[in-house]
Amino acid sequence: MPAKYTHVDFADHVKRVVEEIVVKKGLDALIVASPPNIFYLVGSDAPSAVVLFSDSSVRTLSSRLEYTRALDEARLGEHFVFSKSEDVCEYENIVKGDFYEALASLVKGSREGRLGAAGFSPEALRKLEEKVGGGVADVTADFKLVRRSKDPSEIAAIRAAVHVAERALAKALGNLERGVTEAEIAAIIASEIIKSGAELAFPPIVAFGEHAAHPHAKPGLRRLKDGDLVKIDLGARVEGYCSDITRTVAFGKAGENEKRVFNAVLRAQEEALALLKAGVEAREAHMRAYEVLKSEGLSKYFNHGLGHGVGVEIHEDPSLNAESQAKLVHGDVVTVEPGVYVHRVGGVRIEDMALVLEGRAELLTSFPKRLEV
Amino acid sequence: MPAKYTHVDFADHVKRVVEEIVVKKGLDALIVASPPNIFYLVGSDAPSAVVLFSDSSVRTLSSRLEYTRALDEARLGEHFVFSKSEDVCEYENIVKGDFYEALASLVKGSREGRLGAAGFSPEALRKLEEKVGGGVADVTADFKLVRRSKDPSEIAAIRAAVHVAERALAKALGNLERGVTEAEIAAIIASEIIKSGAELAFPPIVAFGEHAAHPHAKPGLRRLKDGDLVKIDLGARVEGYCSDITRTVAFGKAGENEKRVFNAVLRAQEEALALLKAGVEAREAHMRAYEVLKSEGLSKYFNHGLGHGVGVEIHEDPSLNAESQAKLVHGDVVTVEPGVYVHRVGGVRIEDMALVLEGRAELLTSFPKRLEV
Repeated sequence: MPAKYTHVDFADHVKRVVEEIVVKKGLDALIVASPPNIFYLVGSDAPSAVVLFSDSSVRTLSSRLEYTRALDEARLGEHFVFSKSEDVCEYENIVKGDFYEALASLVKGSREGRLGAAGFSPEALRKLEEKVGGGVADVTADFKLVRRSKDPSEIAAIRAAVHVAERALAKALGNLERGVTEAEIAAIIASEIIKSGAELAFPPIVAFGEHAAHPHAKPGLRRLKDGDLVKIDLGARVEGYCSDITRTVAFGKAGENEKRVFNAVLRAQEEALALLKAGVEAREAHMRAYEVLKSEGLSKYFNHGLGHGVGVEIHEDPSLNAESQAKLVHGDVVTVEPGVYVHRVGGVRIEDMALVLEGRAELLTSFPKRLEV
Repeated sequence: MPAKYTHVDFADHVKRVVEEIVVKKGLDALIVASPPNIFYLVGSDAPSAVVLFSDSSVRTLSSRLEYTRALDEARLGEHFVFSKSEDVCEYENIVKGDFYEALASLVKGSREGRLGAAGFSPEALRKLEEKVGGGVADVTADFKLVRRSKDPSEIAAIRAAVHVAERALAKALGNLERGVTEAEIAAIIASEIIKSGAELAFPPIVAFGEHAAHPHAKPGLRRLKDGDLVKIDLGARVEGYCSDITRTVAFGKAGENEKRVFNAVLRAQEEALALLKAGVEAREAHMRAYEVLKSEGLSKYFNHGLGHGVGVEIHEDPSLNAESQAKLVHGDVVTVEPGVYVHRVGGVRIEDMALVLEGRAELLTSFPKRLEV
């Protein structure tokens, strides 16, 4: 872990959500579902819901299966467990009923029209409304917006996750040798990340040669040959926060065409990165990379968006693509990952993570970008 | 891989779905979404949808991002790609528009009221209906039922996934030594599974001592001490099919209480397993395990359902729990995994997989169940 890494300040997240949503919308209580939202508030994804009240008090509600994990992991809140069965351990805060009935009990006393919810599907929201006996305002979009601006403690966790990923990437590249399989390299990455106590942010992608033509290739038993391009995309999760980085290298000497494509992707990435700052349209960054690749005759092979937000989730708001409506905000952490993929031939992707600030962006990843290693 | 492992017969899945759903419901076409359903039909989760027609023809529809992977991975079907952009590679089967517009093009000519869909969320189904200009029957439940009865080729894939998991489990247990961390053991498991070319069916659970009290503990930096219980839950995915197995062992000599709990959980598991056969209520198997644990005064610590179906998904139908309405069918593959969890003390879970047959069930897992190793 880098020396400056400290624990994430979950209490500050609660404060921000209460200020930005509960108070501004005049809510008595906000009911929050979905594991990333729940983790964001209390530092554990064990509860099934978290309820924030206008007086800033916090209650979590867990199934019996996850209740003790909520008790041990959550950094704040008063913890409740729901159960339909009578045959339960002697916990203090048992709420009788199913999930929705228990939620209705927890928010009893809230006034009609003063309840909000974030992270519920439309069906789940209907069930909730049925049990609380009235309308519940869906503030999912507001919640997503609050989550976008990472605070210094979250940036520190993301930096720690980058550190773990870059160390695993170095080890993976150090183990490239003729005849090794994609799966063997992926196993090294997974082992490095997990044994550090981190989680895999996603299953690592290791693709040799023609397999690199698939943006989401799965590591298989393809063996490494001289002249192959090697595409590695990996990420770790440290204290709930993700990293995401991709490098493409040539095993042995790169051909002229590989060099041309690599340099075009690198230039597309660097020009897009240079654009990032608070207030810029996410679409604009995507289009810059697209135009660079177009000038090289490669844009038709760039078959995905430029990047995405990263935080508690490996893919979160904002999306950086041709159809994005988002404007970048101070504190956004985003990937910038143009790629060129030619079916049956190969592919090149270069991906870094950047922190969006006023007037500029800061790279969070620092691994060298060289085709030949 | 065990010698008898052969490839999954996806064409037979298409045939079954056409016979059981398309023909029986009088549909012209069935539009299937969600990665596990898509994988079940064509052997790749790259497409965004698969369309089955009443003449048994199959079309897949992919995003540009995933199209070449669909071309390379899918075992059957005619493959289409949707794109709103004009700047696309010279693929043969480009359908102009977004996902829903492209689906509407693919099923053009189907008669009003003769379209079905499986695996769509209610919102997605509404969007689909808007683009096709009429009602679409939701046959998601029928599709799930077809997927439950595993055929011999699927059983073979699951056996291969069990083999990979049991080998990783043996290696994990062989590496238990004083001072090793949960994360180090989890890394060994992940490495073993991934380097074989399989995927992780889920992140392995390795929990020492008091951490084993959490059914879904996450491996951390807790070090192994003499007398700790060690709970390990792991699974592999081979050719898209999952395995799932849990063992609990004592590191060093087990205490009398650990032995009593272990033996109660084992007896609960064995009695539940002995009940399994086609036609039995899933709830009945759960209640048998519950009653065994109740007779030992341990039922309040059994805080989850007895088990779940396993196949393309690590958790699929049927659920075996106190509220299950399902009856077991021939070809169901289910876990049987009672557990006893005592907060701040520890936990014991023993999990095997069984294939449900007429009149009996067959264990698919064969790893020894011994507290002291």
